[in-house]
Amino acid sequence: MRFVALTLFLAASVARADLSEADLATAARLRDSALASPLAYELVTSLTTEVGSRMAGSPGDERAVAWAVARLKRLGFANVRAEPFKFTAWKRGPGHAQITAPYPHRLVMTALGNSVPTPPEGLEAEVAYYPDFAALRADKSDRARGKIVFIDQKTERLRFGATYGSAVAARTSGASEAAKRGAIASVIRSIGTDHDRMAHTGAMLYQADAPRIPAIAVSVPDADTIARIAKDANASPLRLKLVVATEPEVPATSHNVIAEIEGTDLAKDIVLIGAHLDSWDEGTGAIDDGAGVGIVVGAAKAILDSGSKPRRTIRVVLFGNEEKVVDGSRAYGEKYKDVRHQMVGESDFGAGRPWRFATRVTPAALPVMAQIEKVLVPLDMARGDNDANTGPDAALLSRRHGWPTLHADQDGSDYFNYHHTPNDTLDKVDPAAMRVNVAAWSVMAWLAAQSDVEFGPLPREPGP
Amino acid sequence: MRFVALTLFLAASVARADLSEADLATAARLRDSALASPLAYELVTSLTTEVGSRMAGSPGDERAVAWAVARLKRLGFANVRAEPFKFTAWKRGPGHAQITAPYPHRLVMTALGNSVPTPPEGLEAEVAYYPDFAALRADKSDRARGKIVFIDQKTERLRFGATYGSAVAARTSGASEAAKRGAIASVIRSIGTDHDRMAHTGAMLYQADAPRIPAIAVSVPDADTIARIAKDANASPLRLKLVVATEPEVPATSHNVIAEIEGTDLAKDIVLIGAHLDSWDEGTGAIDDGAGVGIVVGAAKAILDSGSKPRRTIRVVLFGNEEKVVDGSRAYGEKYKDVRHQMVGESDFGAGRPWRFATRVTPAALPVMAQIEKVLVPLDMARGDNDANTGPDAALLSRRHGWPTLHADQDGSDYFNYHHTPNDTLDKVDPAAMRVNVAAWSVMAWLAAQSDVEFGPLPREPGP
Repeated sequence: MRFVALTLFLAASVARADLSEADLATAARLRDSALASPLAYELVTSLTTEVGSRMAGSPGDERAVAWAVARLKRLGFANVRAEPFKFTAWKRGPGHAQITAPYPHRLVMTALGNSVPTPPEGLEAEVAYYPDFAALRADKSDRARGKIVFIDQKTERLRFGATYGSAVAARTSGASEAAKRGAIASVIRSIGTDHDRMAHTGAMLYQADAPRIPAIAVSVPDADTIARIAKDANASPLRLKLVVATEPEVPATSHNVIAEIEGTDLAKDIVLIGAHLDSWDEGTGAIDDGAGVGIVVGAAKAILDSGSKPRRTIRVVLFGNEEKVVDGSRAYGEKYKDVRHQMVGESDFGAGRPWRFATRVTPAALPVMAQIEKVLVPLDMARGDNDANTGPDAALLSRRHGWPTLHADQDGSDYFNYHHTPNDTLDKVDPAAMRVNVAAWSVMAWLAAQSDVEFGPLPREPGP
Repeated sequence: MRFVALTLFLAASVARADLSEADLATAARLRDSALASPLAYELVTSLTTEVGSRMAGSPGDERAVAWAVARLKRLGFANVRAEPFKFTAWKRGPGHAQITAPYPHRLVMTALGNSVPTPPEGLEAEVAYYPDFAALRADKSDRARGKIVFIDQKTERLRFGATYGSAVAARTSGASEAAKRGAIASVIRSIGTDHDRMAHTGAMLYQADAPRIPAIAVSVPDADTIARIAKDANASPLRLKLVVATEPEVPATSHNVIAEIEGTDLAKDIVLIGAHLDSWDEGTGAIDDGAGVGIVVGAAKAILDSGSKPRRTIRVVLFGNEEKVVDGSRAYGEKYKDVRHQMVGESDFGAGRPWRFATRVTPAALPVMAQIEKVLVPLDMARGDNDANTGPDAALLSRRHGWPTLHADQDGSDYFNYHHTPNDTLDKVDPAAMRVNVAAWSVMAWLAAQSDVEFGPLPREPGP
């Protein structure tokens, strides 16, 4: 069915007029001017310095929204606004963890987002060790009952972060799987590719049919220590103590911040380029996702300054509460569900150099993608497939609403070294690589705005 | 004077019989067996796992001494003992620091060793920014008065850590220089070559003529943030708040742990190979100096297992409280000042590959050094000069008592990434590079024990 449609659409689109030479020439100029612009790096510098950490629902989050509105207005965008949405926030309190036996060690830990607290006096118990999450899921025995489960799931380093998707299940679902087996708390090896004494936080989710038990991550070197002791047949039983304060389920309001370049003849159609404004609390949110904020605002500003008016409206959306999880984009989708979106794109993988142009568009638009690709080749970007991954916000919008997406796939070799840790700071952002991203997004947004061809709609996929 | 002596000694030594072919052949066998031995890495694994952090005067320190005595006995060394010494310990309590204006930021910090505490409610003041320690020392003005001084001293990365010596003055002397100018506290950029969100601790010293003010270090990314704000002419004054609990000047006892291979005809002469057993509290003391402990014990064990008896007594010394500072070696020197030491050596620069053989011996012994060098060449070690640097304990003994030193200079390119931070953990130790060190030390110790030539004495240098 889909194959038939593809053939028909391809035949149709080959015959029609497409991106004009003038639009392609403008795209090339945008690309080259973006490569020379310091704006994106200035923005991530300003956001991480003047705001810093900004977990949704925190005072930092409010300051980030005010920062973004002020900056976007000052840059000259139209219709700058902060659109409120309600969500359930989570607050972190102090936490600490130790190995209490057979050898005392202080552990570097972080509570996972949404985790319930321990009792104020903490929890102490023997450890049930699992070499990975699959081993826990396969366990039909009673051996975790009354214990603290430790899941020693490793995260492999790959350019794309392709193993993150599988490893992260230990973080999101580990506590509930442990609780179903009678465990009193869940501890995971950080989902990260580094060997730094830093724990990686991130959201976890409780399943409805399992008791809610506290969930923490320890740093990779601390996980190594736990694993060495757990595997030492001569050591007496390994025991941990956790003291974790959190406040789950705090009613809160945050905002998506929006700015536009109004379109001309197709102004009602939206070309959305986004990033998320919130960050985890441990770092200053430079690579996650201050970089994305700089990149998409920088790309839109390049278009704004080009003197060329886009046909469709280019809309920058800085989503709130992506991290815990995607409440802002859910609210955005609900509000704008009846508006045609030519494209929803999101830059949320740090500032690493983009190396591939990926899309998820209707087959009729594939020849346009080939035209866009040609403008991206000088950035050393290859053509990816038509089943793009994009940031979590854009992915939700694309799947739920059938809106197409274009994406600049980035080199994320070191992304999961720093992701969700105190180490997510400005020094991890490479200004030169960042500018290449700005160039790519300015080209994609501009040509999406100009194309005669509609990139969607795509089939909608129901989801959470 | 020294040149004349050199010429005479050279002439004399060229004429005499020297290291035998048999001893050189044993050295080559020791080298090759050490290269295959897992012992050194097993020891640093055991020490960091079963003891972990072990700041002098802490319960970890006591456990480390017990660990070392038990291990050295089990390995079959003679005269294993823990020799007590008294010193003044320092205890760390909780600490935190923030930028309070113009933008709130939580800082990653550590109190420097020996620092006095702040009042319980903390200190809050405007910052007087100095780009480096020289700028503070050059300041004759009143601008630090009543303020918190921030010294933005950078540490350059060099294979040897050669810039550590200059940068570290900001740590050791920054607080007193700031206090002399009326400052109420001193904050430094961490003395480290990393960009991790980890503060580097280390000893500081108060000068007698300056008020004692609290002294902390912040991580490199946090120092970057402070510097960006301090340099931003548009930002309102930068203010910091510090709350630091410490207990300086706690009377304490620790131990040097000693083990021997008894010599034969020259048994009263000592060939000392050492490392320090204590560590800072933030990490598990893997590179500083668990690695050295593994290396020198591994080297001695290779000699013990060779079946060849050394002429001089080979003495392994694991010094106590090197870090704050060199109390153990001072006590050792006092106790053994009348015993002839053929050599005092210390491995205290991590587990990086040794690349140079350096010495500080009397000129008469230089031809012997040339013989030793030949056995080290297969380890890819070059000949260094006759003004070796060695670990702080051996350096003190060598300078104060005129005892010669031999040293395996190591590649420390990444040493100051991890030094004195929570990141000093086992995963930073390369087992293969460690074995090369064991090989080098076994060769040096064995041939020092066998040589007909006395390597010293050297002129004594008065010191602190």
